[in-house]
Amino acid sequence: GGRRSGYITIGYRGSYTIGREAQADAKFRRVARITVCGKTALAKEVFGETLNESRDHDRPPERYTARYYLKFNFLAQAFERLSEAGFRMAACSSTGTCAFAPEQGGPADDKIWTSYTEYVFCRD
Amino acid sequence: GGRRSGYITIGYRGSYTIGREAQADAKFRRVARITVCGKTALAKEVFGETLNESRDHDRPPERYTARYYLKFNFLAQAFERLSEAGFRMAACSSTGTCAFAPEQGGPADDKIWTSYTEYVFCRD
Amino acid sequence: GGRRSGYITIGYRGSYTIGREAQADAKFRRVARITVCGKTALAKEVFGETLNESRDHDRPPERYTARYYLKFNFLAQAFERLSEAGFRMAACSSTGTCAFAPEQGGPADDKIWTSYTEYVFCRD
Amino acid sequence: GGRRSGYITIGYRGSYTIGREAQADAKFRRVARITVCGKTALAKEVFGETLNESRDHDRPPERYTARYYLKFNFLAQAFERLSEAGFRMAACSSTGTCAFAPEQGGPADDKIWTSYTEYVFCRD
Amino acid sequence: GGRRSGYITIGYRGSYTIGREAQADAKFRRVARITVCGKTALAKEVFGETLNESRDHDRPPERYTARYYLKFNFLAQAFERLSEAGFRMAACSSTGTCAFAPEQGGPADDKIWTSYTEYVFCRD
Repeated sequence: GGRRSGYITIGYRGSYTIGREAQADAKFRRVARITVCGKTALAKEVFGETLNESRDHDRPPERYTARYYLKFNFLAQAFERLSEAGFRMAACSSTGTCAFAPEQGGPADDKIWTSYTEYVFCRD
Repeated sequence: GGRRSGYITIGYRGSYTIGREAQADAKFRRVARITVCGKTALAKEVFGETLNESRDHDRPPERYTARYYLKFNFLAQAFERLSEAGFRMAACSSTGTCAFAPEQGGPADDKIWTSYTEYVFCRD
Repeated sequence: GGRRSGYITIGYRGSYTIGREAQADAKFRRVARITVCGKTALAKEVFGETLNESRDHDRPPERYTARYYLKFNFLAQAFERLSEAGFRMAACSSTGTCAFAPEQGGPADDKIWTSYTEYVFCRD
Repeated sequence: GGRRSGYITIGYRGSYTIGREAQADAKFRRVARITVCGKTALAKEVFGETLNESRDHDRPPERYTARYYLKFNFLAQAFERLSEAGFRMAACSSTGTCAFAPEQGGPADDKIWTSYTEYVFCRD
Repeated sequence: GGRRSGYITIGYRGSYTIGREAQADAKFRRVARITVCGKTALAKEVFGETLNESRDHDRPPERYTARYYLKFNFLAQAFERLSEAGFRMAACSSTGTCAFAPEQGGPADDKIWTSYTEYVFCRD
C-alpha cells in the first residue's frame, strides 16, 4: 500500500525573559515540549520511537490525538523527520501572552512571557 | 456539474494555562469549538453530517455564514476533510489575548490565556 | 487593454468575548467592517457596487486609498470576489490587543478583546 | 549586468483606537512610516526617489541598512514597486502591543494600541 | 557528496518604543541578536565565520543546537546567506509581549515592548 495523505500539526510553547539576566545572557528562546496532533497512525509513522504517547496511550490508529509529544526539543529535528516522510510545511502561526513576574523563588528582576507557535504540515 | 471554486475559513479558540498545574501537566493547548465560515452550500459539501448548523439554521445555500461549527475538535481532521474536497490551505494567522486569573472556583495558582487562530482554505 | 497587475489588502477588526456569556454562546468571532486598501481603480474593478467609498470619495483612479470598505461582512465573500478578478492570496497576518472590561452598560462578567487581521492579495 | 538576487523587508507601525470615537469613525488602521531594510543598492534600485535616506545617508551600496523609509504611506504602492522590480512576497508577520490610554491632550475615552507588521520580499 | 536537505530557523528579538522619543525619532524597530537553530553542520556551512558558537561550542556536527547566533544584525543579510546556500523561506511567525516602562535610568516618558520573530528555511 502507498503512503496516505494527511495533516500533522506541531506546536510548542516558547518562553522568554525580560530584565537584567536577559541582558547578560544571549536572550535565547526556551522551547518546552513539542506537541504533535493528527491521526495516531500518521504520527507514529513519522516519529516512531521519538514519540511520547504516555498522555494518550492505547488510542486506535485511525483516531486523532492532540496529546502526543516528542522526546526531543529541537524544532529543526521535527521538521526534518516530517520532510523525510514526505510532508511539507503548509503554514505557521504564533500567539503570545503578556509578561508576568515569575513565581516566588525566581530572580526578582526578570519577567517572563510565553508564546504558542503551531506549524501545519501536509502530505498530498 | 463540476465543483465550484471558493473559500472556506476555519477558526478555533485555544486556551492555555500558566502556573503550577501547567508545570505538572503536559502543557497542551485546549481547542474549543472549530468554527466554519463561507458559503453554506460549500460548507455542507465539505463537512456533511459533521457540521453543526444550529446557530444559523435555514440559511439559503447561496448565502454566507460565519456561525457554523464542527462536531469534532481535531484540526487535522478538519484539514483532511477540506483536502479530500479539493481545498488547499492558503494562509493562517493567530492572535492572542492576555493572561487572566480564572473565575472563582478554578485553581488559584493558574492563569489562563486564550488565542484565536484562523486558517484560510481555497479551491480553484 | 488587458488586466493590470497590482496589490489589494483586505483588513478587518475582530472582537471576542471572555466570560460567562461566552461560555453559553458559541464563542464566535464578530467581524466589524472589512476595509480595502490599494489603487482606487483596482478596488472598484474588483468590488464594484459592494464598495463603500464614503470615507474617501472623489479620489482619482490612479491614486491609492486606505479608507474604502465593503458593504458586507463575510470574509469568504471578499476572497471570492478577489479570486474571480484574478487575485490570489499572498500572505496574511494578525495582531491582537488585550482584554478589557466593556464600557458601562455591557454585561459585567465579560471582557472583550479585539484583533486586526490583514490579507494581502496580488494579481500578476 | 543582470539583476542581482536578494531580500528586502518592509515594515510599518499600525495604530488603532478603541472607544467611543472609534465607534463613530470607520475604525481604520493608521499606517505610520513604512521602513525598508536590506542592501542599500537594492533599496535604491526599487524605490528610487521615493526613498528617504536621511536616517542613514552616505551608506556604501554594498552595505545593509535598517533605517531607510518611504516618502509615501500606502502599502499596496510599496508592494507594486517591489513587484515591478521582480520581487515577490515570501512571508509576513505581525505583532502587537497592549492598549494604553493616550497621553494628556488626547480624547479621554479612547485607548490606542499599536502593531508592527513586516513583509519579506525576495528576488531569485 | 551532494548537499544535504534540512531545516534552519532564524529568530530575533525586536524592540520598539512608545512615547515622546518615538514621536521624534523614526520609530525604527531595533533588532537584537539573530539566533540560529538547526543541525550544527548545516549552520556552519551556511554562515561560516559569521556564526558565533560561544554559547554552544564543541557541539558534534550531527547534533542540533538552539544557541548559535550571528555576528551581524541585518535580517536581509541572513536571508541572502541562506538563499545562496540553496535554502528558501518556508514560513515565518511573530509574537509580542506587552509594553512596560523601562528600568531606572531610561527616559521616563517611554514605554518599550518586545517581540520574537522566527523564520523557517528549508532546503530540499
